Amino acid sequence: MPAIDGDRLLRDLYAVREIGKFKTGVHRPTFSPQDIEARHWLAGKLAEAKLDTSIDGIGNVYGRDPTPGRKLLMGSHMETQNHAGWLDGVMGVIFGLEVARTLGRGIDVATWADEEGHFGSFIGSRSFCGLLTEQEMDVCSNRETGVSLRDALRQAGFSGRPREKIDRGRYRGYLEAHIEQGADLEDHHLRIGIVTAIVGSHRFRIHFEGQQNHAGTTRMAVRRDAGVALVKLVAAIEAQFPAVAGPLTVWTTGDIKLDPGAASIVPGGAELVFQFRETDPEILEALDLLLQALIAEANKGPCAVTVAYHSTTAPSAMDQGFQSALTAAAQRHAPGLHQPMPSGAGHDAQILSQMLPSAMLFVPSIGGISHHWTENTRDEDIVLGCQVFADAAEAILARG
Amino acid sequence: MPAIDGDRLLRDLYAVREIGKFKTGVHRPTFSPQDIEARHWLAGKLAEAKLDTSIDGIGNVYGRDPTPGRKLLMGSHMETQNHAGWLDGVMGVIFGLEVARTLGRGIDVATWADEEGHFGSFIGSRSFCGLLTEQEMDVCSNRETGVSLRDALRQAGFSGRPREKIDRGRYRGYLEAHIEQGADLEDHHLRIGIVTAIVGSHRFRIHFEGQQNHAGTTRMAVRRDAGVALVKLVAAIEAQFPAVAGPLTVWTTGDIKLDPGAASIVPGGAELVFQFRETDPEILEALDLLLQALIAEANKGPCAVTVAYHSTTAPSAMDQGFQSALTAAAQRHAPGLHQPMPSGAGHDAQILSQMLPSAMLFVPSIGGISHHWTENTRDEDIVLGCQVFADAAEAILARG
Repeated sequence: MPAIDGDRLLRDLYAVREIGKFKTGVHRPTFSPQDIEARHWLAGKLAEAKLDTSIDGIGNVYGRDPTPGRKLLMGSHMETQNHAGWLDGVMGVIFGLEVARTLGRGIDVATWADEEGHFGSFIGSRSFCGLLTEQEMDVCSNRETGVSLRDALRQAGFSGRPREKIDRGRYRGYLEAHIEQGADLEDHHLRIGIVTAIVGSHRFRIHFEGQQNHAGTTRMAVRRDAGVALVKLVAAIEAQFPAVAGPLTVWTTGDIKLDPGAASIVPGGAELVFQFRETDPEILEALDLLLQALIAEANKGPCAVTVAYHSTTAPSAMDQGFQSALTAAAQRHAPGLHQPMPSGAGHDAQILSQMLPSAMLFVPSIGGISHHWTENTRDEDIVLGCQVFADAAEAILARG
Repeated sequence: MPAIDGDRLLRDLYAVREIGKFKTGVHRPTFSPQDIEARHWLAGKLAEAKLDTSIDGIGNVYGRDPTPGRKLLMGSHMETQNHAGWLDGVMGVIFGLEVARTLGRGIDVATWADEEGHFGSFIGSRSFCGLLTEQEMDVCSNRETGVSLRDALRQAGFSGRPREKIDRGRYRGYLEAHIEQGADLEDHHLRIGIVTAIVGSHRFRIHFEGQQNHAGTTRMAVRRDAGVALVKLVAAIEAQFPAVAGPLTVWTTGDIKLDPGAASIVPGGAELVFQFRETDPEILEALDLLLQALIAEANKGPCAVTVAYHSTTAPSAMDQGFQSALTAAAQRHAPGLHQPMPSGAGHDAQILSQMLPSAMLFVPSIGGISHHWTENTRDEDIVLGCQVFADAAEAILARG
């Protein structure tokens, strides 16, 4: 069994936490000076580990094993949400680095740009997989500052470089480690999660058109209150989704807006943002049908209910063989303290899994906290996770 | 019977519509240059009608009958909501002017400043009734521009003037005419409404405190979703208010906000703005108790539900004798085409009724439209309304 160097691993994680440090977390948005510094820092580390190192035209950082033979690709992301956690993303990258150092060969390491979506949707991993067009790059811009992706890449010094593309023949598959971002492992006193699938999600913006009126002089019987119509649909979702959902399905009304949104005006318009996530395609479809039925029912009321926006991502099943290797390694180092589980959050692995057999390993998040500077994982869980990761990688490579 | 001059009445209304004209409506916010011009225009008209004319330190315009004997006070407001209707307010003022001209004596006319609430709540009529302190004036400011009431009065040239106070012995009572601002008269093919009472209103801001979480990784069973708690309370209100409400009670959830209001975040906070209006104090109290019970029930769920703000105004009953005089006059000029009805909107009469016997007359609003530049009333309904108003005033004054 390959023994990782836990102290070295933690030293690297502590070092990269200093780049954009915010309280006990990190503020390192995509292509911020801190993010660019972190990419160059990683490139230095990869080169130290005797990997062929490059940063490409989308800002992905690669470390390639120069020895012959098929490789296992390991990666995650380094940028963070604003004022967010110190491990979300970069832990998986440093796991890759540490496994590469430990095994000595067979591992390529990658950092995918902008998994956190400051400029777009998985632009780094999609670029590598040939799923990002130049046209899409032309229209991407920073959601907060409005700076275009092209300008941001230029300022970072990455524009003009080629964008590296996947060589599927080179790879045995893809492995990604990540913090859980939920509390399920902690709640069950477990230390390792082996991801069965990354959920598919269906996202909706639903619009309600009624009639704006004076809230004092408009009798109830003649109102077409868009806010009330919205509330009734959400209440119906809450009442009826549980019967169709699976045990791990999640659904969320994340935002509600009333128009004009004034105390003494009957809302003439209303809009909600709704999503549900699930790994089972059949359940996703059943929920879709239920939602359509509830919207049709709502349309029998006094307001017009329309789906203004609808997007779906399919669930991504993780490779069974890779899951077995991760489970065997987890059982060796933490017997009985691991479980199979879905990933409710999106990850670059959902993109890579379209091209390569892929799998993910989770370590516990203390209190389930994510996307906040208080996010944390116990050092011993980090070290254990990396050891399991290394064992599984060796086993997968040994199978050839 | 005194015959009003309908052409003269309409000419004056058309003339004042030119001051701040916006499309077919008017944009004349309180103490805007257009509003100030309109006040001076009215003062000229009142003086022409041989009334003692003044503008006081809050911007109220008065025309006082210099002859002996008790008077009937007539008034309304001249400023408008932004880009709003041409009749909302000023029609009642010009009715007063026309009745004063027609009867020749016994009528005082007043324009109350800022009924529309650009700076405060009924500051003009409350000033006249001795219900507005200097301290409150110090803190009033324009809701949109932030300009203080003191500065606005200074720029208008009204500051430093005394604020006129009511002499209750002078008045037999107060009469106000207004557009309905709803469609009830039109829907029932009626031409005159005699107001029985101005509704009382109870207003609430209700806050929901849950826990913010990742919408992908937080299982349904452990969520404390403030948005869902809010939706359930509003749904419960919609389900249970009808059983307790009177036939004319209205209730409105005018605004909803989720915090942070993002697609993939379980809302940790939520807030709604809710109000109900009714003329019967017993129904108002029963609705208050029902709402408290629903909030208590909501508090048994996973989120903390608190009333962050609560204000009430009591219903204002209109004088029975004045209502009879208005009804008799309406029956004379429009037999069978009038009805008693509550006012769902607030009016200066609710302030004056605390000091004097008061009553209100409504004319129909085409399509029930209010607070919009398309607000309108048929010329013949305006003229009819003023004639009924004049007859009733003469009858009330004749009773002594």
